[in-house]
Amino acid sequence: MTRRVLVASRNAKKLNELRRILDEAGVAGIEIVGLNDVPEYDEAPETGATFEENAVAKARDGFVATGLACVADDSGVAVDALNGMPGVLSARWSGTHGDDAANNALLLAQLGDVPDERRGAQFVSACALVADGVEVIVRGEWPGRIGRKPVGDGGFGYDPLFTPEGETRTAAELTPAEKDAQSHRGRALRQLLPHLAALADRG
Amino acid sequence: MTRRVLVASRNAKKLNELRRILDEAGVAGIEIVGLNDVPEYDEAPETGATFEENAVAKARDGFVATGLACVADDSGVAVDALNGMPGVLSARWSGTHGDDAANNALLLAQLGDVPDERRGAQFVSACALVADGVEVIVRGEWPGRIGRKPVGDGGFGYDPLFTPEGETRTAAELTPAEKDAQSHRGRALRQLLPHLAALADRG
Repeated sequence: MTRRVLVASRNAKKLNELRRILDEAGVAGIEIVGLNDVPEYDEAPETGATFEENAVAKARDGFVATGLACVADDSGVAVDALNGMPGVLSARWSGTHGDDAANNALLLAQLGDVPDERRGAQFVSACALVADGVEVIVRGEWPGRIGRKPVGDGGFGYDPLFTPEGETRTAAELTPAEKDAQSHRGRALRQLLPHLAALADRG
Repeated sequence: MTRRVLVASRNAKKLNELRRILDEAGVAGIEIVGLNDVPEYDEAPETGATFEENAVAKARDGFVATGLACVADDSGVAVDALNGMPGVLSARWSGTHGDDAANNALLLAQLGDVPDERRGAQFVSACALVADGVEVIVRGEWPGRIGRKPVGDGGFGYDPLFTPEGETRTAAELTPAEKDAQSHRGRALRQLLPHLAALADRG
């Protein structure tokens, strides 16, 4: 029997990322569905002050509304020269939710006069899993630097601006498998694997 | 004899603010000139990580380049929900330097989902005075809250969004005299008065 797990996202890339990570880890018996598969459910707005607060609020809300075990993440980029912002406001940094090009352009403009030695940043992801009798919150971080122009066509969000520590390519130039192995969300999601495997075993 | 003091700014409102504060304090013998009065001098870009660093760098640069005693400030708004940003990037928050309307619109959009109890902020000003054998750096702070729309026609920068603690009006609704008495820059500049008075005495 297959256990349906709701990922509280409309982003197909996020759903596939978790599917790949489950596959690689050999966790079977889980079918990932996204918010587009439960059109009757309207997700709650993100108003928390931390990634963790937003992730667990979304996962609780999704579980209560649909009865499905629910995984939610809140992720973003924490830029040193911006005291850790855009942070929880990463997706709406330019004012319009989800406009990657505008967000990237604004971040580059804000950092226009920031010298190379102060361009450190990290991608951060908090992931929560909420199900009947289960509530887990984990965090993954991916350190790197913000460049001076977008490079690469892969990934999403701020990937074209972010060169991970130890890499010469941006996150948008990595293959999906390379990105999964390193990324903040990959690191966080892998911490959920044993909990997801236990759910699958419960059937 | 009158001592000329360069204020490292092209903003007439800032020059007049210091003139009023000197007048009120009865400090005579100082003529305030601005960057537009020394067209041969091209100011240095602001690349520091703190208000203080930028203020003293500008004041040193102005003094060295012109030989005039130089006052410089770096000021901005530190928003709690943005971990103290826009901070030193306040004037160029939207990417274009000095576009108050765009900066205000962006800040409001970023804080769109931030609830009232997390909309605290403070205006911060670091002011530096550099002259022959003199280097003073002071800081003034003005606590308040960020509203949900611009209100008032006075002031500049983020004034229409900022309601000072203990006020029902925004900073853009205060008279210049009321603002001088309370404001971050007023608080900082008044700490420079004894040092400016000493310069005037030296003639």
